[in-house]
Amino acid sequence: MIELGANRYGKAAIRLVKVTRDPDRHHVRDLTVAVALEGDFRAAHTEGDNANVIATDTMKNTVYAFAADHLDGPAETFGAIVAGHFLEMPQVERATVSLREHRWTPIPTDGGPSRDAFLRSGDFTRTASATAVRAGPTVVEAGIEDLTVMKTARSGFAGFPRDRYTTLPEVDDRIMASRVSATWRYGSADLDWDALFDGVRGTLLDVLADHVSPSVQSSIWIMGRAILERHAAVEEVRMALPNLHHWAVDLTPFGLDNRGEIFVATTEPHGLIEATVRRSAG
Amino acid sequence: MIELGANRYGKAAIRLVKVTRDPDRHHVRDLTVAVALEGDFRAAHTEGDNANVIATDTMKNTVYAFAADHLDGPAETFGAIVAGHFLEMPQVERATVSLREHRWTPIPTDGGPSRDAFLRSGDFTRTASATAVRAGPTVVEAGIEDLTVMKTARSGFAGFPRDRYTTLPEVDDRIMASRVSATWRYGSADLDWDALFDGVRGTLLDVLADHVSPSVQSSIWIMGRAILERHAAVEEVRMALPNLHHWAVDLTPFGLDNRGEIFVATTEPHGLIEATVRRSAG
Amino acid sequence: MIELGANRYGKAAIRLVKVTRDPDRHHVRDLTVAVALEGDFRAAHTEGDNANVIATDTMKNTVYAFAADHLDGPAETFGAIVAGHFLEMPQVERATVSLREHRWTPIPTDGGPSRDAFLRSGDFTRTASATAVRAGPTVVEAGIEDLTVMKTARSGFAGFPRDRYTTLPEVDDRIMASRVSATWRYGSADLDWDALFDGVRGTLLDVLADHVSPSVQSSIWIMGRAILERHAAVEEVRMALPNLHHWAVDLTPFGLDNRGEIFVATTEPHGLIEATVRRSAG
Amino acid sequence: MIELGANRYGKAAIRLVKVTRDPDRHHVRDLTVAVALEGDFRAAHTEGDNANVIATDTMKNTVYAFAADHLDGPAETFGAIVAGHFLEMPQVERATVSLREHRWTPIPTDGGPSRDAFLRSGDFTRTASATAVRAGPTVVEAGIEDLTVMKTARSGFAGFPRDRYTTLPEVDDRIMASRVSATWRYGSADLDWDALFDGVRGTLLDVLADHVSPSVQSSIWIMGRAILERHAAVEEVRMALPNLHHWAVDLTPFGLDNRGEIFVATTEPHGLIEATVRRSAG
Repeated sequence: MIELGANRYGKAAIRLVKVTRDPDRHHVRDLTVAVALEGDFRAAHTEGDNANVIATDTMKNTVYAFAADHLDGPAETFGAIVAGHFLEMPQVERATVSLREHRWTPIPTDGGPSRDAFLRSGDFTRTASATAVRAGPTVVEAGIEDLTVMKTARSGFAGFPRDRYTTLPEVDDRIMASRVSATWRYGSADLDWDALFDGVRGTLLDVLADHVSPSVQSSIWIMGRAILERHAAVEEVRMALPNLHHWAVDLTPFGLDNRGEIFVATTEPHGLIEATVRRSAG
Repeated sequence: MIELGANRYGKAAIRLVKVTRDPDRHHVRDLTVAVALEGDFRAAHTEGDNANVIATDTMKNTVYAFAADHLDGPAETFGAIVAGHFLEMPQVERATVSLREHRWTPIPTDGGPSRDAFLRSGDFTRTASATAVRAGPTVVEAGIEDLTVMKTARSGFAGFPRDRYTTLPEVDDRIMASRVSATWRYGSADLDWDALFDGVRGTLLDVLADHVSPSVQSSIWIMGRAILERHAAVEEVRMALPNLHHWAVDLTPFGLDNRGEIFVATTEPHGLIEATVRRSAG
Repeated sequence: MIELGANRYGKAAIRLVKVTRDPDRHHVRDLTVAVALEGDFRAAHTEGDNANVIATDTMKNTVYAFAADHLDGPAETFGAIVAGHFLEMPQVERATVSLREHRWTPIPTDGGPSRDAFLRSGDFTRTASATAVRAGPTVVEAGIEDLTVMKTARSGFAGFPRDRYTTLPEVDDRIMASRVSATWRYGSADLDWDALFDGVRGTLLDVLADHVSPSVQSSIWIMGRAILERHAAVEEVRMALPNLHHWAVDLTPFGLDNRGEIFVATTEPHGLIEATVRRSAG
Repeated sequence: MIELGANRYGKAAIRLVKVTRDPDRHHVRDLTVAVALEGDFRAAHTEGDNANVIATDTMKNTVYAFAADHLDGPAETFGAIVAGHFLEMPQVERATVSLREHRWTPIPTDGGPSRDAFLRSGDFTRTASATAVRAGPTVVEAGIEDLTVMKTARSGFAGFPRDRYTTLPEVDDRIMASRVSATWRYGSADLDWDALFDGVRGTLLDVLADHVSPSVQSSIWIMGRAILERHAAVEEVRMALPNLHHWAVDLTPFGLDNRGEIFVATTEPHGLIEATVRRSAG
């Protein structure tokens, strides 16, 4: 017998810009939105019956229409409203709205911050998601992506096992560079999302800068634990850190010493360390 | 209390090319390999103790060294051997080796296929993975990515519910285009991987071309079911199909009819339909 | 004094798909089109006067409208017709239409090639451009991009000068890999473009496979010269070949020899060799 | 007769990171460098004679070795030194070193800016190039890339000609968004590059924010002219501005008005406006 297993569908890469035109200055919101639904969609697959299939084009329209009335606060709130809307349809059992927010800041001019001209900031992307389910509150997560960081001191890697394939020397001082992705789950669906995001991001960067790293694994634990310790609203943090190796260039053929100064930055291959840090039941 | 949850680590984007120099012709294997390990790595996180941490650099070395002796057959076999090697280390509970194979074909020349010059084929990427675990046989999966397809007939989308946000007209004839990703799990760890891959790919393309599609959901089911029906070695197929919309251009302002001829190809936004088709226990 | 220098403008990334529905089989044309105009656009810049500025939106509409009636042959012909249209406007002195053609082939099925289902081929992208000017015939160019090739024999690099910064050993046998870009200019605006493209591509691949390469520079010359020798319609060939280095992996730490078998494929850094080969006036 | 035309070669994508470890804080320089040479390289092409061919691997080594001693100031200065080195070789007639600088800023922590942890800033990429030639001074250019900007007011597009393919309405208020690329040439090879870069960038942003734009063409002129007026060291500015269209979403089917609030951001197709603004000989 052949059966349908897990399935979901939706619309991805919905590019939404909202401009709010206050008298003294404009505000720009720029989001890439994805909607994904799970529920009673078996007949669409196995019978070719679309009676339950909310068109993904309708999802896109819904996002734009809801943005007009409901996108005046954090992405988390907007996501929860849109997810809640789709859950009103009886065939939907789980609705997830994922948002990536691209940040624009007023252009600095000789006369102060511009009121209607903006610069897109590339330091990081803020992410959020809201998952509405039949039983229980909406699950809200937030995160950060595209946060590229480097520690030029207080990072080493030693004490690891050696076998016949091991050539890496032990070092007590190396460059650690990564493009951090972090996602954290909140324990409630009604919080001050902007303040929490700023707080968690601040903690992450503060600890990243300050800690001594014996490995990327340890760094994830130290940062994740600090986030949970300092932010009671956060239940769990998931992090994925590529280890973007910077190799010291051998300058001896050129009659030069390389005292930890000259490196070649690489992306292939890279280490990839992933871990979850969470509150335990105990 | 704060605790470590799920975690894994490894090396990604290991770029490996192997050239075999037979007297009458060369052969090129070109793989992007990733290794990921799970196991007893708690102390690395929480204690900064690297005694159990196989360096990801060692993983890279291992892949290259094993390629010399063991990469003479399908990627699945090579992956299983490398995964098995890492499982020999007592701290490892699960070792996954993922491979993406980039295909090179001899350049056609006036004198026949070249013996030592190759053209990289971009029609699709073959994928494979082998997961070795403490209990039970190695799990082998295969797949296909970057397979971009289009149906110019026998695809429609109608009968879907309409609400106040629905503007999409029902159509019995549309263009369906997608960049197919499919992964299938085999029921055994010792099979004729190349023949199976060719067979499953053939079934996928054959059914894709021949079936009448009332929705992408239905297409996934029809293709997945056919793969399971025709290939007893396959236990489960997971597919993800973006719906790359092609919108008919309104030519009436220019005094022209568009009889299903002129389309604008788009990638943003896109539908995204994901489903698993599997053998049921019953 | 401050003045306007060289300037041009247009529409880029116009994504056009045309489906022709013959009774026995469909045909798909898939083009990315760019239009660029030069001419009397000074007032638009310096006076803010748009009276001469054909909107880039109009260019896009024109491409779609012309595709309905005029895209039934090679991209070169379509490009020349569209370029000629824009040159009819008195303010335009030069109109360039550039086209990248994405190739779709019928899906092979158990019953033969499909009549209405297609697979996008990624082996290379065919390019074309037509530049219409006030005086003289339209200049037509064609080209090939994304053609990734590898020679596993008959490629070396030796005899180069050595200075204090030179560490590269001389080799008489190396892997040469590249992602070839070639553009060639035709001597007439009315030729059998499809046959010529196939011919030039065939020559390029044939010579690439067959020649002995002492350097990428030499390879470009040998391929370019052959194209000009074998195809009288071609006046000039411009080629750009990145040298995608494949470095032999040192396996001696693992007790293994690497007899030209195991390589790491790299993209950063890469050599980049560019040259023009042309018919001389003499 | 067939002859060699224009040709050049070099090394691209050299990834260089330099860490300077001052007692009170570290500094990170992160550059992607390309070297390109022109000169007497005919024999390499036509004779397969590499006697004049400085290996691109040697170029890479040279960049790293020179970085140790000479990368302690602006990228322009480093580029000029490296370009000058290659011009010392008699076969080289023109040496161009191009640099893209990726900016890192100290991570803000609770205790102030970190001394050894950095965040990569993505707001823009600073570029520079130095071209050393046999006769005359080295030509230095600087530029900015990846600068993504948006004007939500004071931008319109009207007064353009209408033909049968024109459907775009005239608007006196639209969103103008672009990913600005600008390159400017200096009149001297010995200037305060960092101050000049900051100054030109400041002017570009200031004018971008403040001016009223009747077209992208006009915006380029206004910004370019201001750069030349305010910065006597700059001889010429070349700019390329894609017009990243933001289309107002029609919300009327949903019973809503869209008063310039809700937009769909697009990248395909896009306008592309390029122009040079320069000092005239007169």
